Amino acid sequence: MSAGRDEASSGPGTPAPARRRGRPARAAAEEGPGARERILAAARTEFAARGYDKTSVRGIAKAAGVDAALVHHYFGTKEQVFAAAIELTVAPALTMPDALAGGGADVGERMARFMFGVWENPVSRQPLLAIMRSALTNETAAAVLRGLIERRMLQRVAGELDVPDPEFRVQMAAGHLIGIAMLRYVIKMDPVASADPEEIIAMVAPALQRYLTQP
Amino acid sequence: MSAGRDEASSGPGTPAPARRRGRPARAAAEEGPGARERILAAARTEFAARGYDKTSVRGIAKAAGVDAALVHHYFGTKEQVFAAAIELTVAPALTMPDALAGGGADVGERMARFMFGVWENPVSRQPLLAIMRSALTNETAAAVLRGLIERRMLQRVAGELDVPDPEFRVQMAAGHLIGIAMLRYVIKMDPVASADPEEIIAMVAPALQRYLTQP
Repeated sequence: MSAGRDEASSGPGTPAPARRRGRPARAAAEEGPGARERILAAARTEFAARGYDKTSVRGIAKAAGVDAALVHHYFGTKEQVFAAAIELTVAPALTMPDALAGGGADVGERMARFMFGVWENPVSRQPLLAIMRSALTNETAAAVLRGLIERRMLQRVAGELDVPDPEFRVQMAAGHLIGIAMLRYVIKMDPVASADPEEIIAMVAPALQRYLTQP
Repeated sequence: MSAGRDEASSGPGTPAPARRRGRPARAAAEEGPGARERILAAARTEFAARGYDKTSVRGIAKAAGVDAALVHHYFGTKEQVFAAAIELTVAPALTMPDALAGGGADVGERMARFMFGVWENPVSRQPLLAIMRSALTNETAAAVLRGLIERRMLQRVAGELDVPDPEFRVQMAAGHLIGIAMLRYVIKMDPVASADPEEIIAMVAPALQRYLTQP
């Protein structure tokens, strides 16, 4: 009665097992306390490596060494597993409102500096690019990302800014930075791709400042 | 000695035929004068629908009703077919330097208006988004797109602007607009997604103006 027995029933070529009442709870007890964290770690790795479309709950379960029913038990549908997996990945970027707190004459520069701090580190950049890839290729993944940003970031940001339409303003500023990230890290177009981050920050900060503070 | 015979030799499950000397030229003669255009149209459709990774030269040949060897004969490798296919798709966006010609106090607004003209029309937007998807998920596709933009657009733009580092300036401005497009058309985040284009143009134009003209 180990994970091995459950795994065998969901080998390649057979459909993922349907959710069966009663059984997941028993499986959960068998897997021990670390199973949920193992599933989440496996989901992050799988979604980052394969994208939303090509990742399956069965594949995540296999990578975590558990039964697919246990994944459903803890997280629900594939969409819900994705939401849980990317929440942690996006978490560093979601603290952006902290960088805007209090506004001021350098809030544009602080916003730019914050985003480059996240992006210039490959450890935080790679999984964010993987999420962008999923959002660009799958409508469900895009909706999950949108919901997360709206719920966890935009509402907070709006409270920090004393301008009309603060959410629109923040999106213009964030969109600007996202576009630069596309050119620099994805399309890798020079001169933006190889420019010193400080040079880009100096160039972009006044544009962000205008969005975030000009009445 | 028709396309049918060639097609049968490259049916599903068999690898695409290697390029054989002499044969493509014969096949070209057999296919008639419209074959090249049929292949290009099929390539555009296939790359847009499936993305770079999942599109094969054999699949393009099948959609065009020709032998895969003929595709190689006209265009070379899959990468080269992709370059030829997206060149036409990107062509409307590549005329952007015309909108910047002469600079002036409204050059930022003209640039924004030009890009929204391309994007707000689904007929030109959808294939551009498909190319973005390919570039975001495949390094080769990204390199092809980068080469096309550098060769066909950035060099021309640089000649139109009287500022230091004109290529860097144009990329900052283009990056800004690309990021807004990501939020509006891909992630579909409100309020940017449902804002009137005129409202966005009014908001973004001063930022573009600064990049394109401020010394």
